[in-house]
Amino acid sequence: GQPLMLIAGPCVLQDEDTSMRIAEVLAAINQSDQVNVVFKASFDKANRTSAAAKRGPGLEQGVEMLRRIGQASGLPVTTDVHLPTQCGVAAEVCSILQIPAFLARQTDLVVAAAETGRPVNVKKGQFMAPEDMRHVVAKATGAGDGGVLLCERGTFFGYGRLVNDMAGLVTMRNMGVPVVFDATHSVQRPGGLGDATGGNREMVEPLARAAVSVGIDALFFETHPQPERSPSDGPNMIPLDQFRPLIDRLLRLRQCVNELASIR
Amino acid sequence: GQPLMLIAGPCVLQDEDTSMRIAEVLAAINQSDQVNVVFKASFDKANRTSAAAKRGPGLEQGVEMLRRIGQASGLPVTTDVHLPTQCGVAAEVCSILQIPAFLARQTDLVVAAAETGRPVNVKKGQFMAPEDMRHVVAKATGAGDGGVLLCERGTFFGYGRLVNDMAGLVTMRNMGVPVVFDATHSVQRPGGLGDATGGNREMVEPLARAAVSVGIDALFFETHPQPERSPSDGPNMIPLDQFRPLIDRLLRLRQCVNELASIR
Amino acid sequence: GQPLMLIAGPCVLQDEDTSMRIAEVLAAINQSDQVNVVFKASFDKANRTSAAAKRGPGLEQGVEMLRRIGQASGLPVTTDVHLPTQCGVAAEVCSILQIPAFLARQTDLVVAAAETGRPVNVKKGQFMAPEDMRHVVAKATGAGDGGVLLCERGTFFGYGRLVNDMAGLVTMRNMGVPVVFDATHSVQRPGGLGDATGGNREMVEPLARAAVSVGIDALFFETHPQPERSPSDGPNMIPLDQFRPLIDRLLRLRQCVNELASIR
Amino acid sequence: GQPLMLIAGPCVLQDEDTSMRIAEVLAAINQSDQVNVVFKASFDKANRTSAAAKRGPGLEQGVEMLRRIGQASGLPVTTDVHLPTQCGVAAEVCSILQIPAFLARQTDLVVAAAETGRPVNVKKGQFMAPEDMRHVVAKATGAGDGGVLLCERGTFFGYGRLVNDMAGLVTMRNMGVPVVFDATHSVQRPGGLGDATGGNREMVEPLARAAVSVGIDALFFETHPQPERSPSDGPNMIPLDQFRPLIDRLLRLRQCVNELASIR
Repeated sequence: GQPLMLIAGPCVLQDEDTSMRIAEVLAAINQSDQVNVVFKASFDKANRTSAAAKRGPGLEQGVEMLRRIGQASGLPVTTDVHLPTQCGVAAEVCSILQIPAFLARQTDLVVAAAETGRPVNVKKGQFMAPEDMRHVVAKATGAGDGGVLLCERGTFFGYGRLVNDMAGLVTMRNMGVPVVFDATHSVQRPGGLGDATGGNREMVEPLARAAVSVGIDALFFETHPQPERSPSDGPNMIPLDQFRPLIDRLLRLRQCVNELASIR
Repeated sequence: GQPLMLIAGPCVLQDEDTSMRIAEVLAAINQSDQVNVVFKASFDKANRTSAAAKRGPGLEQGVEMLRRIGQASGLPVTTDVHLPTQCGVAAEVCSILQIPAFLARQTDLVVAAAETGRPVNVKKGQFMAPEDMRHVVAKATGAGDGGVLLCERGTFFGYGRLVNDMAGLVTMRNMGVPVVFDATHSVQRPGGLGDATGGNREMVEPLARAAVSVGIDALFFETHPQPERSPSDGPNMIPLDQFRPLIDRLLRLRQCVNELASIR
Repeated sequence: GQPLMLIAGPCVLQDEDTSMRIAEVLAAINQSDQVNVVFKASFDKANRTSAAAKRGPGLEQGVEMLRRIGQASGLPVTTDVHLPTQCGVAAEVCSILQIPAFLARQTDLVVAAAETGRPVNVKKGQFMAPEDMRHVVAKATGAGDGGVLLCERGTFFGYGRLVNDMAGLVTMRNMGVPVVFDATHSVQRPGGLGDATGGNREMVEPLARAAVSVGIDALFFETHPQPERSPSDGPNMIPLDQFRPLIDRLLRLRQCVNELASIR
Repeated sequence: GQPLMLIAGPCVLQDEDTSMRIAEVLAAINQSDQVNVVFKASFDKANRTSAAAKRGPGLEQGVEMLRRIGQASGLPVTTDVHLPTQCGVAAEVCSILQIPAFLARQTDLVVAAAETGRPVNVKKGQFMAPEDMRHVVAKATGAGDGGVLLCERGTFFGYGRLVNDMAGLVTMRNMGVPVVFDATHSVQRPGGLGDATGGNREMVEPLARAAVSVGIDALFFETHPQPERSPSDGPNMIPLDQFRPLIDRLLRLRQCVNELASIR
C-alpha cells in the first residue's frame, strides 16, 4: 500500500525552539518508509473565539519560520491560508496549502490556493455534507493541477459538540481524492471553555483508529511538548512524548487494514 | 415601540432595472413610520455551491449600483463583505455592513468592518451557538463605535437542513444588541438541488411570524419579481407582488406583541 | 376562530391537594370562551432518568384521582399511557389519551389508545421528522374514530438539548389534524442535572408565542405552585401564580394572529 | 483477548426455512474460537413505520421458532422484548434479552428483563447521550444479576439520518459493561423510503471496522439470503453469501487491534 501521509505540528507558530523540537521528533518518525511526514503550523489563527487570544507571527515572519523549520528538519511544510492574497507567498515555502473548515465554501480562496499549483488540503466545513465537497473539488481542480485533498475534522452536532461521520470518509474518498482525518480538531468542544474552545484528548486515538480502519490516506495531529502551554488547542493536543508510539500503533493498524482486502 | 428595521432586496445585484423595481416597492413600504427599510444586495456571491454559478458585478461596479439605487429610492443600502479590504469601499455607500454566516468567526473581517464606523450586521454561523456570538460582539465593539447587530439565519440540523432555534433569539438579544431574523435564508436546503442550494418558500412567513413573536428588531428577506429567474436563492425568495401584504401582516403582529407587555 | 385548547397540570399526580389547587386556577381560566382547558397529570412517570426517582400513584389510584379532580373542577382530564393494557381504564375517565414521545412509534399502544374511541394526542418522537408523523396518524385513524392530535415537544439537537422546528408545526397541521405545542417539555435539557433532566423556564413563553404565531390548535404546559418541590420537571414548569397572565398574553396574541388572514 | 460476541440473524422471524439456513451459516462461523455467535431474530416488529407493514409471528410462536432454531443449530438465541410481560416467556428460550432503542428509557421494561436473570442488551436510544446510559445500567443491575450490555445503533442526526459517535463507544465501555456495535441498523435512513425505512448497505463494513478499532465486545448484524425479500430492513442487511468473509475480515482486524496495546 501507499505510505500514510502524516501532517503534524504545534498548531500555531510560537517560539521557534518549540517548533524545532517538534519537527525533530517528526523527522525521526519520517525515517520509516510507511509514512511521509509534513510539518504543519499556522502563521495566523484568524478565527479565534476571542479577539484577545494570541494569533501567531503573521504571514511574512511565519513563512520564514516554516522555511527554516523545513530546512533544519528536512521535512516538507504546510500551513493554512485565510485570504486569496496569502496563497502565493505561502506556496513559495509550503508543499501543500490548507483551507480552513470555516472557509471551505469561499470560492476565491480555494481557487487562489489551487492556482499556485500546490496541492490544496480543504477541510470539510462543520456545516457541510461530505457529498457537497465534490463541488469544492471541482472548484480546485478547475483552477490548478496540483491536486486536492479533503479533510474530515468533525461536523456540527448540537451546540458545543462535533461528531465524525465515519461513513463520510468513504463518500469523500469515492470522489477519487486522498482523504485526511484530522484527529485532534475532531475532539474540540467549541465554546467548551467559555472564552475558548475546549477538547477531549483521550478520544484522539480511538477516533484516529476508526478512521484508519475505514480507510484514509493521511492523518492530521497537533502535538506539543507541553500542551497546557500551547497558545491554542491545548486540550485536544497530543503530548509530544506520547506521539511516536501513537503513530506506531496507527501504522501497525493500517498495515493490517491493507491486508484485509485479501480475505474474500 | 421602536420601528422595525426591514432589510430586503434581490440577493445579488443583477440587471439594474430589476433592482430599481424592487427598491421602488421597498420605498413605498418605507412610507410607514412603523418600519425603516434598508435595501440589501450582494456585489459578489463569494461562496456559491458551484464554481460555475454566477457571482455578481464585483465590488466597484456593485457599490456604484448600490449608490444609484440608494439615491433613486431614497433608501439606505447595505451589502455583505468577504474580505477586510472590501470594507472601506463598501462603507462609503452602505449604512450597514453585513458579515456572512460562514465568515462570522474571521476576526480580521469583523474588525475591518467595525473600523469603518458603520454598524456591522453579523450573521450567526450555522456552526455556532447563540451564546458564542458574544465573542463576535466583543470583537466588533472593540474595533469601532458603529454598533453591532446579530442575525439568525439557521443552524446546521443534519446534512442539507437548517433549523431556527427561536430561543437563541432571546439569548442574543440579551447581549444588548439588536437582533435580525433572516427569514428567507432560514428555509434554505443546502445542496438540496444537487448542484445548488434549494429552499422552501412556504415556510418563510411562519418562521418570520415566530421570530416577531419571540421579539426581534429587524427582519431580513430576499424578494424578486420572478424568483425563478434569480441567479441565486430563487427557491426561498418571496415574489415581489406578495411582499407588501406579508410585511403588513408582520407589522400588525409586531404591534400586538409590543402590547402584550401590559398584560401582567 | 376556534377556541384554543389548553392542556395543563402538575406533570405527575402527587398529593391531591396540590392537584386540586392547580385545577382550581385552570377552571377559572376555563371561564373564557376563547379557551377549552383540559387538566393533565400523569399516573406514572414510566421513563424517569433514574430508577430511584419518584414515579406517581399508578394506574388505578391515579385514574381515581383524575376522576375526583375532574368532578371537583368541572374540567375534562387527560393522562399519558405507556402500555396497551392501560388504555381502557384510562379512557373511562379521560377525554383524551396521550402517547409519550419515546413511544410514538409503538404501533400497539397507538392502536389500543385509538380503539377506546377517545382522541389520541401523540407527541412527536424526539427522533422523528414531522413528515413521518403521518404514519402515526394513519395507525390511529385506522383503529378508532376519536381523532388524533399531534404534539411538538422538541427534537434531538445534540446531546442534552432539544430544538423546536417551528416549520414542523406547519407540516403536521397540513396533515389535517390539530397540532399541540408542548411549551414546558420543549425547554428540557435531558441529562442536564446529571441524575435528572434539567430545563430553562425563561424560554417557555418565547417558544409558546412562536408556536401561537405559526398557528396551532392547543398549548400544553406544566404548572405547579412550587416548581422546585415538584417530583419531576421542576426546572421547566411555570409557577402557578404566573400562569394566568401568561395564558392571557397568549390568547391575546392568538386573536391577533387569527385576524392577520384578512390582510392581503 | 476475549472472543468477540457476534449477534446476528434475519431481523424478523419469517419462514422457518430461511431462519434455519441463516443459522446454519452462523453455526459454521461459531466453530472459530475467536467468536461466540448468538442467533437473533424478532418475534414482533412492534414499531414499524407503517401499520400495514408485516410484524412477525408473535411471542408464543416466535419463541417456539427460536427454540427449534437454537436446538437445530446449537446456537444460543436472543430476541427483543417490547412489554414487561413478554420478558419471562422470552427468557425461557433466550440467553440474552434485547431492549429496543426507542424503549431504552422505559424503566419497567428494563427492570422486567433484568429480573429474569438473563443478561440484558440495551440499545442506546437515538435520542440519548452515551453518558446517560449509565442510568439504564443502574436500572438493570439494580433489578437482576444477569449483567448488562450496551449497544450503539446510531444517534439522530437531522431528519432521516443517523450518525455513529464512535467516541461514545469509549464512554459506554468505561462504564464497565460490554459494548455492542449494531452495524446494520446504524446505516438506516428513517423514512428514507417514504413509507418505510431505507438504508445504505455499503457503509456497514466501514462502520463495523471503525467500531472494532475503537474497541468493542460484540457486533450485531442482520443478514438474509435475499435481503430484497426480507419483510423489513432489506436495504441495510448483509447478503448471507457475503457474511462469512466479512466476519473473517473483522476478526482479523480485531486480533490486530488487541495486539496494539503492546506498542508503547
